[in-house]
Amino acid sequence: VAYDGRNYHGWQRQTNALTIQQILEETIEKIIQSPITLFASGRTDAGVHALGQACNFKTNSQLNLMALKSGLNALLPEDILVKEAVDVPLDFHSRYAAKSKVYEYRILNRKAPDLFRRHYVWHIGRPLRVDEMRRCLSAIRGEHDFSSFQSSGSRCVHAVRRVFGAELIGEQDGLLRLVIEADGFLRHMVRNIVGTLTDAGLGKIDAGRFHEILHSKDRSLAGVKAPAHGLYLVKVHYAF
Amino acid sequence: VAYDGRNYHGWQRQTNALTIQQILEETIEKIIQSPITLFASGRTDAGVHALGQACNFKTNSQLNLMALKSGLNALLPEDILVKEAVDVPLDFHSRYAAKSKVYEYRILNRKAPDLFRRHYVWHIGRPLRVDEMRRCLSAIRGEHDFSSFQSSGSRCVHAVRRVFGAELIGEQDGLLRLVIEADGFLRHMVRNIVGTLTDAGLGKIDAGRFHEILHSKDRSLAGVKAPAHGLYLVKVHYAF
Repeated sequence: VAYDGRNYHGWQRQTNALTIQQILEETIEKIIQSPITLFASGRTDAGVHALGQACNFKTNSQLNLMALKSGLNALLPEDILVKEAVDVPLDFHSRYAAKSKVYEYRILNRKAPDLFRRHYVWHIGRPLRVDEMRRCLSAIRGEHDFSSFQSSGSRCVHAVRRVFGAELIGEQDGLLRLVIEADGFLRHMVRNIVGTLTDAGLGKIDAGRFHEILHSKDRSLAGVKAPAHGLYLVKVHYAF
Repeated sequence: VAYDGRNYHGWQRQTNALTIQQILEETIEKIIQSPITLFASGRTDAGVHALGQACNFKTNSQLNLMALKSGLNALLPEDILVKEAVDVPLDFHSRYAAKSKVYEYRILNRKAPDLFRRHYVWHIGRPLRVDEMRRCLSAIRGEHDFSSFQSSGSRCVHAVRRVFGAELIGEQDGLLRLVIEADGFLRHMVRNIVGTLTDAGLGKIDAGRFHEILHSKDRSLAGVKAPAHGLYLVKVHYAF
């Protein structure tokens, strides 16, 4: 599923706010005419986008997948799109079966903002030292305790995650894309990494300090959390 | 001035609807503390965007241009941006002094829509024959009576315009950009051309027929008007 997170209070159902889970569940129920519960690979926060979220539900419906997908896309609001629908084994669970996830964070690093992407990139007007930011990234590749980049208030006892890849890609017109793949992500982990990474880009810290911050396991040393609207859940990888 | 036309009823002031002219005039008046009237190079319709609209006003204010520009950008809503502010001769008029204007129309030609550009491109899911569309464009280059592509209801007595250039540029991911420069444009001219051009792209007509339609000067023969949200006023050229 792809979605523009701008108008939603994140993935997960809430009592008083519109979420993507609620819209998808209600639309699926309209089509298959029976109640379902949707399980996602993980929640995304308010304002975060998805190019490839994965979710599953169980049903006895005989409706074929093509009809389900087109029915959903006909009924869903224009900011949510079902890209693919597949059958999975009965014991499949979008969250527990995920082998890795890919997130992307988009920074627009140029003087002038882009009106047409203002909800889809984080605009930073001052020039970023991209090479220094790339030097920081070597710190996060591999298996580490990411407590320094976990938002306070979250309660993951086990904060070790394996980062399979982290690349900072420069595109035309000042677009910078941080693409990061890991076996799992702590709460706000990408946004906290990006906030600290831009501190290095702006010369407030250097790559050595970035490494120290990671290894300190102390959240209070890291930079601010980057805004939600630059973040995309790109893909969830499964074993099959 | 650049603006995202999505939330506005076009450029020109209206009694009961929010327009870009009204917002800009009111914001300028707040800053210079006296009433002004803003003249633009031309109106843009509801939903049409601008990367480089030009407009002028007269004032006795001694405020310098940098302060005016930053003041405006601080007060304007986030979907309107002043890109440049310059002094002009007292007899300058954004509309009458314009030598040419550049418009761009963006089509996204691929099966899947792009959620994040849904207000900024016209999505056409069926494959377009771009070569045939390019053959059509040779018809509109140069000086022609564009009555066939003028919206009914408009009353331009003189429908002859000179098109300096018209190119269809293919970008990555299925983006097609029609860039067209002319000494002036009739009402809905670009959108009517694009609608008929896509008829050629979809095989409903060929380039020969497109040429016939132009020379017929008969609006009823042309295709449908392409939607506003794919259209951008890119630049207005002046002699100085």
